[in-house]
Amino acid sequence: MTHDGIIAAARAARHASHALGALPRAVKDAVLLDLAARLEANAGAVLAANGADLAAARAAGLAAPKLQRLTLTAASVAAMVSGLRQVSALPDPVGAVVREQRVPSGMLVRRVRSPLGVVCMIYEARPNVTIDAFALCFKAGNACILKGGKEAAASNAALADLAHAALAGAGIDPGALTVVSALSREDLLVLLEQDAFIDLVIPRGGTDLIRFVARHSRIPTVQHYQGVCHVFVEASADLDLAERICVTGKTSAPATCNALECVLVDRAIARAFVPRLVAAMAAAGVEVRADGEALALCPPGSCVAASPEDFGREFLDLIVALRIVDGSEGAIGHIRRYGSNHTEAIVTRNERAASDFLRRVQASCTLVNASTRMNDGASLGLGAEIGISTSRVHAYGPMGLEELTTVRYVVEGSGQTR
Amino acid sequence: MTHDGIIAAARAARHASHALGALPRAVKDAVLLDLAARLEANAGAVLAANGADLAAARAAGLAAPKLQRLTLTAASVAAMVSGLRQVSALPDPVGAVVREQRVPSGMLVRRVRSPLGVVCMIYEARPNVTIDAFALCFKAGNACILKGGKEAAASNAALADLAHAALAGAGIDPGALTVVSALSREDLLVLLEQDAFIDLVIPRGGTDLIRFVARHSRIPTVQHYQGVCHVFVEASADLDLAERICVTGKTSAPATCNALECVLVDRAIARAFVPRLVAAMAAAGVEVRADGEALALCPPGSCVAASPEDFGREFLDLIVALRIVDGSEGAIGHIRRYGSNHTEAIVTRNERAASDFLRRVQASCTLVNASTRMNDGASLGLGAEIGISTSRVHAYGPMGLEELTTVRYVVEGSGQTR
Repeated sequence: MTHDGIIAAARAARHASHALGALPRAVKDAVLLDLAARLEANAGAVLAANGADLAAARAAGLAAPKLQRLTLTAASVAAMVSGLRQVSALPDPVGAVVREQRVPSGMLVRRVRSPLGVVCMIYEARPNVTIDAFALCFKAGNACILKGGKEAAASNAALADLAHAALAGAGIDPGALTVVSALSREDLLVLLEQDAFIDLVIPRGGTDLIRFVARHSRIPTVQHYQGVCHVFVEASADLDLAERICVTGKTSAPATCNALECVLVDRAIARAFVPRLVAAMAAAGVEVRADGEALALCPPGSCVAASPEDFGREFLDLIVALRIVDGSEGAIGHIRRYGSNHTEAIVTRNERAASDFLRRVQASCTLVNASTRMNDGASLGLGAEIGISTSRVHAYGPMGLEELTTVRYVVEGSGQTR
Repeated sequence: MTHDGIIAAARAARHASHALGALPRAVKDAVLLDLAARLEANAGAVLAANGADLAAARAAGLAAPKLQRLTLTAASVAAMVSGLRQVSALPDPVGAVVREQRVPSGMLVRRVRSPLGVVCMIYEARPNVTIDAFALCFKAGNACILKGGKEAAASNAALADLAHAALAGAGIDPGALTVVSALSREDLLVLLEQDAFIDLVIPRGGTDLIRFVARHSRIPTVQHYQGVCHVFVEASADLDLAERICVTGKTSAPATCNALECVLVDRAIARAFVPRLVAAMAAAGVEVRADGEALALCPPGSCVAASPEDFGREFLDLIVALRIVDGSEGAIGHIRRYGSNHTEAIVTRNERAASDFLRRVQASCTLVNASTRMNDGASLGLGAEIGISTSRVHAYGPMGLEELTTVRYVVEGSGQTR
């Protein structure tokens, strides 16, 4: 894309956003359902485009995990279709009156939920994000600019064609959705300067991408950064439960941001818990990297010595760090130093330890007696999400429909002046 | 300050923030009331420090409007004291449960209001902002770094001394408040890179300062940008009311961000309204810069021809732009092109025109039959505010206590895993 082309696309998105903000719910839902039907009817074409992306990626020698994220299947297309229907069934956040107050001057002051305007999301290879992000942005009344991975160019173009057909069917400005796949770093810098036309940038992907966007964007960003998630096994914990929460937290999806990366064990129960945890992890194929004190409690060869860099690290693999701590104070101190504000859990039967942990550990999600893997939109009752924010500003935790809106003041007066 | 000193201050603020986030309301309110008493008892010392700032500023040839903003008086000290008492009386936002839901897996999911952590505010000469900002940040459980104008260095240091004495009296980490006055642009760049220690930067001041911060900050920002505020006088308007809203909107405080900058008059009533508006503005000492069509309706010499740059301009002076528009469509189109998302008002007796305007103009505050000057925290029922945000992200409009917090997930489980 030329620089002028990037600016023109951002301007077109801003223009489209004015009408989107005032669209009735029925029109928005009809577009989403129409897109679901088109996607169902054209699954073959989408999979063919994805096949072309995969062939090119294999020829270019893309690594296996990236190939896997790039791959669409009949099941993942069906999941996009069902996601669209789910978003169409969610209440419309736009126009909701969040608060209403008659102030002393006699004015009726309402706080009304409204679209952000134009949202730009920058993500990597997964093409299903294209449909999920469009659905949520559109339902929240926003135009969106979706910058997907260049490896997914053909898949994303096929999905965008279907979305544009659904928009055209309802007479909606095509500027409501712009899909961009190939942008040089220099082009990306031009996009990140369009603060006159874009209200929010959401980078989602590797830490290099997120740091690049945060450093160079003149537009506000909400970052979906790494998850260095801990489980603290407190002295009173049910050890069967603790073992299950730790093992599944690591193994059910090791490459996700809410996977467990480090177990903290209260010294009071270390002798009882560490050997069985290490054995269970080994049985599940997980490498345990333990501090010196934990290492001494394990059978020789069952785990390896942790290096200082293994704490505060997102392994994204079947590897977990293990440290013995001095009760709640030790655990909270470790998490404050090494956590990434993503997800932190405690296993305990002591109510006071639980409430202390929940109050003092201020991650986007803190849990008692549940897995860190439960921090996502579906498990927390949001319905659908665009990612998990680790920025405390604007949205903290899973970003659903409401997090893609703002709240503005709407005032009815009767001649009030100052 | 040295670069190491800046980093150390940011680190100390982060450290202090951990304890602040868990402080009970009673402790926070006692500190605010103690500070109010200390400020009352030491008003003389504060005014003496301000006198030294003023003498240095006069010697350096500071312009009159800046001198005026720098000046503290017994009345402005009393206003700070009363502001502290007012903030102490406001409910504590921290810990409020915003939503609570038992999800199908059986987990109890709460969304709990929590501090942002560390807030950095960068502002210009007004020293009273130092106390107002500290009070709101502290009550919301945040540590703050306040970078005031270098002209106000002695005044701000005197105010910070009183605040530190109040914090020490309650045994609170002095890192809860850092006041910085002299920072080179290079030092400011170092401060804006401390995203590990600072959660939010609020620039408040001239457009150059705000642009510099938005361009260079790696930390999320909420901008308090300019107010290019319009009043649209619709065909059905009560013309007496319209005249009063327009004249007071310009004259009551011309240098504020919510002052009126441009009147849009519906062509249908231009002949009746423009001559009387121009006469009333002239009587109030306001220069009217009119488009060609409006100019033709005015007695010769009563107003001047507007240049294209007079639309979309924040005059901050007794000058107002005037344009004739084609009904609501013309007014909304003009505001979308030239408005700054700050405050927009309509004067009308037509309910449909009012609701259409409120729905389609998505500024931080839209008003019907009230002055743009009514967009501030006190008039809208917030109690106290730190400024008016024109960013749609995080906080839109007046920023009070709640806007200095985030909302996180707190989950009580009973063994849920995935």
